[in-house]
Amino acid sequence: MIIRDVIITPIAFRDPPLLNSDGVHERLALRNIVQLVVDGGVVGLGEGSGGEEVTERLLAVRDAVIGKSVFDLHGIEAAVNAVFGGDEGPLDRRARRVVYSPLDVAAHDAQGKIVGLPVSELLGGAVRDAVPYSAYLFYKWAEHPALDGEAATGDEWGEAIDPDGIVRQARALIDRYGFRSIKLKAGVFPPEQEIAAIRALAEAFPGLPLRIDPNGAWTHETAVHVARELEPVLEYLEDPVLGIDGMAAVSRETPLPLATNMCVVTFEQLKEGFAKDAVQIVLSDHHYWGGLAHTRELAAMCSAWGVGLSMHSNSHLGISLAAMTHVAAASPELSYACDTHYPWNRGDDIVRPGALEIVDGSIAVPRAPGLGVELDPDALERQHQVYLASGRTRRDDTGYMRRIQPDYSPTLPRF
Amino acid sequence: MIIRDVIITPIAFRDPPLLNSDGVHERLALRNIVQLVVDGGVVGLGEGSGGEEVTERLLAVRDAVIGKSVFDLHGIEAAVNAVFGGDEGPLDRRARRVVYSPLDVAAHDAQGKIVGLPVSELLGGAVRDAVPYSAYLFYKWAEHPALDGEAATGDEWGEAIDPDGIVRQARALIDRYGFRSIKLKAGVFPPEQEIAAIRALAEAFPGLPLRIDPNGAWTHETAVHVARELEPVLEYLEDPVLGIDGMAAVSRETPLPLATNMCVVTFEQLKEGFAKDAVQIVLSDHHYWGGLAHTRELAAMCSAWGVGLSMHSNSHLGISLAAMTHVAAASPELSYACDTHYPWNRGDDIVRPGALEIVDGSIAVPRAPGLGVELDPDALERQHQVYLASGRTRRDDTGYMRRIQPDYSPTLPRF
Repeated sequence: MIIRDVIITPIAFRDPPLLNSDGVHERLALRNIVQLVVDGGVVGLGEGSGGEEVTERLLAVRDAVIGKSVFDLHGIEAAVNAVFGGDEGPLDRRARRVVYSPLDVAAHDAQGKIVGLPVSELLGGAVRDAVPYSAYLFYKWAEHPALDGEAATGDEWGEAIDPDGIVRQARALIDRYGFRSIKLKAGVFPPEQEIAAIRALAEAFPGLPLRIDPNGAWTHETAVHVARELEPVLEYLEDPVLGIDGMAAVSRETPLPLATNMCVVTFEQLKEGFAKDAVQIVLSDHHYWGGLAHTRELAAMCSAWGVGLSMHSNSHLGISLAAMTHVAAASPELSYACDTHYPWNRGDDIVRPGALEIVDGSIAVPRAPGLGVELDPDALERQHQVYLASGRTRRDDTGYMRRIQPDYSPTLPRF
Repeated sequence: MIIRDVIITPIAFRDPPLLNSDGVHERLALRNIVQLVVDGGVVGLGEGSGGEEVTERLLAVRDAVIGKSVFDLHGIEAAVNAVFGGDEGPLDRRARRVVYSPLDVAAHDAQGKIVGLPVSELLGGAVRDAVPYSAYLFYKWAEHPALDGEAATGDEWGEAIDPDGIVRQARALIDRYGFRSIKLKAGVFPPEQEIAAIRALAEAFPGLPLRIDPNGAWTHETAVHVARELEPVLEYLEDPVLGIDGMAAVSRETPLPLATNMCVVTFEQLKEGFAKDAVQIVLSDHHYWGGLAHTRELAAMCSAWGVGLSMHSNSHLGISLAAMTHVAAASPELSYACDTHYPWNRGDDIVRPGALEIVDGSIAVPRAPGLGVELDPDALERQHQVYLASGRTRRDDTGYMRRIQPDYSPTLPRF
């Protein structure tokens, strides 16, 4: 069970023009795929944050990880920390956890394959057979615009720039996947328009829990106003404003639970964030909380402090979806449907299809050993070549938006 | 890996007349031993709190646990909670965790035996090869007095009722086991005498970290006085007074870290205890924090909130010592030597000797699968018969003391 090789493969995959407070999703989203090759031929799969910086950091820790037992998560994490000089080095803990995360996921996958158990069992056992996900709605353009010699490129989902478009998108996602709750990525249009979109969703899908997430794009006054307007129909309000103090101030003026994946994103921020009652729900994300075991710890902390737990997503593929599903299944504390971008990105997945299908809004927890997904090596190579050909090194929603709208400013709060 | 049987065996074993703020340890200490019998003949071992009440509760959950996967810790814990009606039932969460704990330990032992890994590897990997323990000193009588037809019974350790006796006891323990830190159970004699004992230890063992634990026997004024007197020589001060508010008040008047196994003993108390800065060190104890995985969660919580972590002990035998050693080995957050009563009780152990030896004050983490200890069935039966013959149903240090000193009052604070 010794790690003999660590294969790091940066990939890129198609992403629709999804709008957010930073700008717009580029044509390609990036990820780093990790394969831990263990004695006896077992290979553990991990998927982590994308971009050249993370690729280089993973390459930097490769030698330190080789030779560790795949069960020695503390040893692997300590090796990662040591490579970067620990707390005295240039990377803060969150940045180091981002590097460690795909190694942790791959280690869990390998562990499960070695002992013949699904990852959820390694995390204490699945408390649910299927994990509910929410329909993750985005304002979006009909197509990526023609730029740099590339033709304009549409997608199956079409345009959504007003309440009607948002309801249409929700209908399409729900028709196909059966989602039973809805999240709208907001902070894009003036608040009255986004309030109208939520109201239209409430009317079109009565009884479905609704969330809105402007990514900190609102002023305190706007946030309080939106909260008052939408209080009767929202399940929770995600990151209406930036910062722990800002969130705490909004929280004092609304009975709506506030959720975050922006102001409390490290273990070091929990003490202040919870003490100030800035958030009533933490959106966990194993990609920056440091893998699956640490995500379980976060869940236990939320429970002990009486804070709710939901799950955040970024553009991702099937390895991450499997990992999210296993850790969610093994988290009794989780009481909300998880977010996922998977419907937007699954067309370019690098795992063989079939293991992860969203049915009735939920994904059945894989019962095969490990994560329960199988790498498609051809697909991995294909998306790696897409990455190499793209010349892309990092996500830049703002830069892309400025190619189209030169005066675009991502400064927050915007509204 | 399905649990086919749960064997619950209450046992009693010899305990010296150790003095504390409740009274004095009786001739026999009690524990409950759990064997989880799993498909294929694997048997997982657990040791939990003693007494008839816990025995009956374990018997009550037996049927609910049979049929679960030994990897499904969440399912086993949920079954325990369900048997007692959860939060609506008669048992609080701490009491339910006491019942769950030996099942959790036995499940971890069985898991390790099934997959061929030591329990420390199942908990994320050992960050140390050996776990340091402290010399746990007690004021004690030379012998259990003659009572109920039993003759007075001495032990190899002799009397310790003053500073000289305490130093003598420390010397004997350190000579035999090589301990490199010392804890004195206090709250027995007037504070000036206990201060003198600590000073005598500091003089006799220069450089060794020292702790004192009066189990809440002191008033605020006494606690502050003792803290000031011993500040230069103490590593930490354990439970000088009772309650979160009382501890917080003492903490404001001393730079010494305050440790507890009395005022913060549940996940539900962490929020208040940490917010009030009542304790700077939590003494973990898997027997009431709900087993090994939850103890890891506690460790992570302490780390995230900047609170230290040490480990508490009650009278115990080798299964518990193995479990303590594995979870301590797998806890990067642990920065103090752990407490253990093992030197006082090991003579009646029910595991075969050899796996757990205290050398240079530390126990090497067993590398064999599971906990790495082997049950001695004859010894288990012997101590079970001792239990049955004793008629004892629960620990009663105060009642025992009153047999000898009828006016003894356990009311705290005493000094």
